[in-house]
Amino acid sequence: MDLTETRTAAKEKMMGFCAVYKVCDGLPDRLCQGIKYGKAIGMGGIGKGESFAANVKALDRLKLKTRLLTPHVEPNTKARFLGREVAFPIFCSSMSGVKISMGGGITELEFARAAIHGAKAAGTIGFIGDGAETFEDRPGLQAIKEAEGWGVQMFKPREQKVLFRLIQEAEKIGAIAVGVDVDGAGSVPMAMKGQPVFRKSVNELKELVQSTRLPFIIKGISSEEDAYAALETGCKVVSISNHGGRTLDSMLGIAEVLPRLVPILKGKVTITADGGVRTGFDVIKMLALGADFVMVGREMIRAAIGGGIEGVRTEAEFLAKDLHKAMIMTSCNSISEISERIFA
Amino acid sequence: MDLTETRTAAKEKMMGFCAVYKVCDGLPDRLCQGIKYGKAIGMGGIGKGESFAANVKALDRLKLKTRLLTPHVEPNTKARFLGREVAFPIFCSSMSGVKISMGGGITELEFARAAIHGAKAAGTIGFIGDGAETFEDRPGLQAIKEAEGWGVQMFKPREQKVLFRLIQEAEKIGAIAVGVDVDGAGSVPMAMKGQPVFRKSVNELKELVQSTRLPFIIKGISSEEDAYAALETGCKVVSISNHGGRTLDSMLGIAEVLPRLVPILKGKVTITADGGVRTGFDVIKMLALGADFVMVGREMIRAAIGGGIEGVRTEAEFLAKDLHKAMIMTSCNSISEISERIFA
Amino acid sequence: MDLTETRTAAKEKMMGFCAVYKVCDGLPDRLCQGIKYGKAIGMGGIGKGESFAANVKALDRLKLKTRLLTPHVEPNTKARFLGREVAFPIFCSSMSGVKISMGGGITELEFARAAIHGAKAAGTIGFIGDGAETFEDRPGLQAIKEAEGWGVQMFKPREQKVLFRLIQEAEKIGAIAVGVDVDGAGSVPMAMKGQPVFRKSVNELKELVQSTRLPFIIKGISSEEDAYAALETGCKVVSISNHGGRTLDSMLGIAEVLPRLVPILKGKVTITADGGVRTGFDVIKMLALGADFVMVGREMIRAAIGGGIEGVRTEAEFLAKDLHKAMIMTSCNSISEISERIFA
Amino acid sequence: MDLTETRTAAKEKMMGFCAVYKVCDGLPDRLCQGIKYGKAIGMGGIGKGESFAANVKALDRLKLKTRLLTPHVEPNTKARFLGREVAFPIFCSSMSGVKISMGGGITELEFARAAIHGAKAAGTIGFIGDGAETFEDRPGLQAIKEAEGWGVQMFKPREQKVLFRLIQEAEKIGAIAVGVDVDGAGSVPMAMKGQPVFRKSVNELKELVQSTRLPFIIKGISSEEDAYAALETGCKVVSISNHGGRTLDSMLGIAEVLPRLVPILKGKVTITADGGVRTGFDVIKMLALGADFVMVGREMIRAAIGGGIEGVRTEAEFLAKDLHKAMIMTSCNSISEISERIFA
Repeated sequence: MDLTETRTAAKEKMMGFCAVYKVCDGLPDRLCQGIKYGKAIGMGGIGKGESFAANVKALDRLKLKTRLLTPHVEPNTKARFLGREVAFPIFCSSMSGVKISMGGGITELEFARAAIHGAKAAGTIGFIGDGAETFEDRPGLQAIKEAEGWGVQMFKPREQKVLFRLIQEAEKIGAIAVGVDVDGAGSVPMAMKGQPVFRKSVNELKELVQSTRLPFIIKGISSEEDAYAALETGCKVVSISNHGGRTLDSMLGIAEVLPRLVPILKGKVTITADGGVRTGFDVIKMLALGADFVMVGREMIRAAIGGGIEGVRTEAEFLAKDLHKAMIMTSCNSISEISERIFA
Repeated sequence: MDLTETRTAAKEKMMGFCAVYKVCDGLPDRLCQGIKYGKAIGMGGIGKGESFAANVKALDRLKLKTRLLTPHVEPNTKARFLGREVAFPIFCSSMSGVKISMGGGITELEFARAAIHGAKAAGTIGFIGDGAETFEDRPGLQAIKEAEGWGVQMFKPREQKVLFRLIQEAEKIGAIAVGVDVDGAGSVPMAMKGQPVFRKSVNELKELVQSTRLPFIIKGISSEEDAYAALETGCKVVSISNHGGRTLDSMLGIAEVLPRLVPILKGKVTITADGGVRTGFDVIKMLALGADFVMVGREMIRAAIGGGIEGVRTEAEFLAKDLHKAMIMTSCNSISEISERIFA
Repeated sequence: MDLTETRTAAKEKMMGFCAVYKVCDGLPDRLCQGIKYGKAIGMGGIGKGESFAANVKALDRLKLKTRLLTPHVEPNTKARFLGREVAFPIFCSSMSGVKISMGGGITELEFARAAIHGAKAAGTIGFIGDGAETFEDRPGLQAIKEAEGWGVQMFKPREQKVLFRLIQEAEKIGAIAVGVDVDGAGSVPMAMKGQPVFRKSVNELKELVQSTRLPFIIKGISSEEDAYAALETGCKVVSISNHGGRTLDSMLGIAEVLPRLVPILKGKVTITADGGVRTGFDVIKMLALGADFVMVGREMIRAAIGGGIEGVRTEAEFLAKDLHKAMIMTSCNSISEISERIFA
Repeated sequence: MDLTETRTAAKEKMMGFCAVYKVCDGLPDRLCQGIKYGKAIGMGGIGKGESFAANVKALDRLKLKTRLLTPHVEPNTKARFLGREVAFPIFCSSMSGVKISMGGGITELEFARAAIHGAKAAGTIGFIGDGAETFEDRPGLQAIKEAEGWGVQMFKPREQKVLFRLIQEAEKIGAIAVGVDVDGAGSVPMAMKGQPVFRKSVNELKELVQSTRLPFIIKGISSEEDAYAALETGCKVVSISNHGGRTLDSMLGIAEVLPRLVPILKGKVTITADGGVRTGFDVIKMLALGADFVMVGREMIRAAIGGGIEGVRTEAEFLAKDLHKAMIMTSCNSISEISERIFA
């Protein structure tokens, strides 16, 4: 099952939720976009979908240039994340809510398995989110456990006491890391299902960080103020993200945010970035802007729903292949050689 | 009847006038847009519709940023308008002309009731306009009377003697306030129906202001010159507006106008803004630019025609819900904390 | 027959040549646009149609502002062109080639009559062009003769000796003025039909100017260099124009050109401007940029073909009505009060 | 068979690969565009197709101005390339891969003949590429041999020993010149078919240059760094190109690159440029930016597949005719008079 077949399968299983366009760009006339008038936002962005589209446009605006008259070296795409080697610095982003957001073509557990096992099979790492609907089942933790801990579990910014318990569970199964999506704080569905979410103060986050031996990830940072605050918490990873444009309308594209936040964070924490990444060329741009790792969401959803574990593996490899090609074309022989000099 | 059903109903009743798009953006290829070649403009903008579209684009260009690592406080959306408390600073804008502009799916009185009673039911205030067709019936004043005065009546810039009489009528029923749309001065339909309209000099407006105990609103200000002039009239409220792009083509979007006019008006009069507002995220942008209250027109038309009083109430609450969410995401705990710092 | 009916009739008669869009904007996907690969360009622009579209876009970029708190005065739209009073400063532009460019729904003589008599009936002036196909018939001169000289005849930049003869003919019938489209110099169809066209030197143009008692018009100026050269020829009128984007691809929109050329020409010659004008709002923008008169092409073609003399009259009046309205909204009480202060 | 018929024929033969749009612009919704998810890219751009579209947009952004009040001179479009006179400075670009990229409507040899013989018939020069599929057959060299050497053969950046042999073959048949597409270095299909490609160091290129009496062309330069390096190799021609946007996504349009590279290269080597050229107006822009010759790819593909030798000849002449017209309109009497002064 190649990627084209995977996407064709996804099209069927996501009918009415996602048209599996040739490029997922969040433009206003897309199936998933437009104001939802009180309904769940499905695969689209929040509000008018400006944040979603901005992620894509911000990447598109970055221009690359070739550097070809140099001795040929085969690029090495390997990288190290929290002490572990990965085949390439591309992760499956943390997601959840198959039924409410993605059309329900597979179960939440199948989705978690696709994300975690598929990424692992490609030589990299899958993240997984948590959602109101399947909270009791812990599908993410189960998939990570099956993968012998090779995966990362992210949680919504729930009550502190709930988070303490959840983090302990993740620690018990030996997850690579654990964290909180701080930009889940405005989620109405969570609150409506008796699982309220909150903004988190620096002190609250410190408590969470200190409650576990696992490296702690704060995901959803996109302002300078929050970046400085995140550094105070003792977390190991900061994920620069606007949640795929699904939490606040009209945010900057993440590729516009990176140049503001990287100088604050670089070298002090590991930086991941996500938002609008569709190809290996987008990946190299994010890396050149200073991200240490790049996470991919929407592409992985279609891969997971259309092709399961195999789909996610193939998608990850597809992205890695174009990253490899882009490194040849820009004379970057290793990930560490990727820098702003590749921009035109 | 939820908002989606309301909009579906509106689609039928507005057939040929409005396609009830997922987002009403005034782009040139929309059903309502394009030069009318002498016909009534319906739901579209005047001329080529550039002012209508500019309202939307100007809002879209404003970018927000999250502020999440702070102690969680539940936002308070309450505000005070001319001494009265409202649940949130979002009003139903003053409109009229159901038959000529909106397809005639309901009567003018039904429309006025939807606007006035629906806004009141949501805990806020409805405005209502006056038009040539139903002038003798006073549908707006009737609806406000039924609501025990809880509403605002706006008039076209008719002859002074006519306005004096109309203002007295509004005063008699105890309306919250009364005012004039000064940007109705170029209305050909009004003139053709023997109800001529005019530009108003500062002195003429002073006379109107002084003729009543009600707070007086000047609506339709969008240039610095007019803003300074408005301050001389003694009015209590200035409504920064380009009439939804229906009176002069190629005007700036109101979100572009606010930064020019707010420094002139702020603190001296109450400022309302309208033009292109579709979501609670648009509302928070207008407030952050300095508007004290935000008015919503086209969304309310569809709500009123599709769902009547209930439709307007639900629409207002929908907008308020996203405003609330946006306040969580930007760490604004009250309306007064909303400022330019939320812009990226 | 109102304008809407006129346009419906035009749609039929121009089948395959013009779709009579709600707004004629020259965007790439329009029926008339796209590279012609050696075929005649019909109603579209030359090459990729960038000049055509640029005319429209340049006007759209100009933003107007209202000025409403002033004493009401009814605007006076009258103007004087070469000593003659016109009801408003809007002319029917000089055009020709009904068969090759417009679909052939009417004869060239019918077209000329529509342009000349229709404009006259509206109280203004019609211009008319000359083309290879009907050169022997002189349809333009005939229509002007019928209108007792009330019209302007423009010629292609043919051989000097031919032009001398043609100018004499125009003088004989007492035309208001006569002139040459200097931007017709690259016309391949003309050359192919044994009627070669040429660039004209300042001296050649001087000869033409001095050969007649009629005021002489040079049309097709859009660079500073040509504007300075035009002043040396002794002509009375300079028409700033890019021929509707039909002679060289990728030119600036005329509304972008005016600010460069008006300072060179203003007060020394009468300035006309054309290119992309669709509404009275476009007209007021051209006037505010310094044009003394505004010419309208494509809108007049549809009016002429769909409605003949009556169509052109109605179209001219439609444009004038919106100009009138725009003057009310911007507090311009006469044409001479229209200036850059109306821009936002 | 005129160009319109040629393009109609191409449409059939390229079904599913190319829709033969009125203008080939690489916009995201075009048949050939969109991420290929591991499949061959066909006629589209690589990745999201941003480089392809950028080529077109960069040309469109350049604005021309007329210069018409000058003595008329018939333009001379002749130019000299490596000592040979051509009727106009427009070449058929080096291409290959009819089956994998263009739909396979004709054979690779037929394609090569169309390119080489068609360009020669128009009085100019055809280039031809080499590809993995037909490597053993040498279709390009055969076509050039048939044309008595009147053609240029370009090679992929294969192993040095392979290139030495190929260059000798080209020399033997008396080709006008020979060269290497250095931006073919990232080609996965080549590698997969056992014909690996590589970046080339300055020393490797020097070896190639010195291995032959033929003038040597380096094609695919688009960064300053590579331009300086190319000058060290002793090559005679540098082709500024991004391979039609088919080797790295998100590159600048070539018309944006020229102003950066021309100052480095001008006068030291012959400069060719290609990327997005669709009309003679695009050609004059590239020349005005400093290119000595302009290459045309995609238009030539459709011409070759739809009309063979005749198709390419007609397309070349079509481009030349509009170049000629553009020279009249801008008062450029010879190719050497074309300069930046034609820009508005």
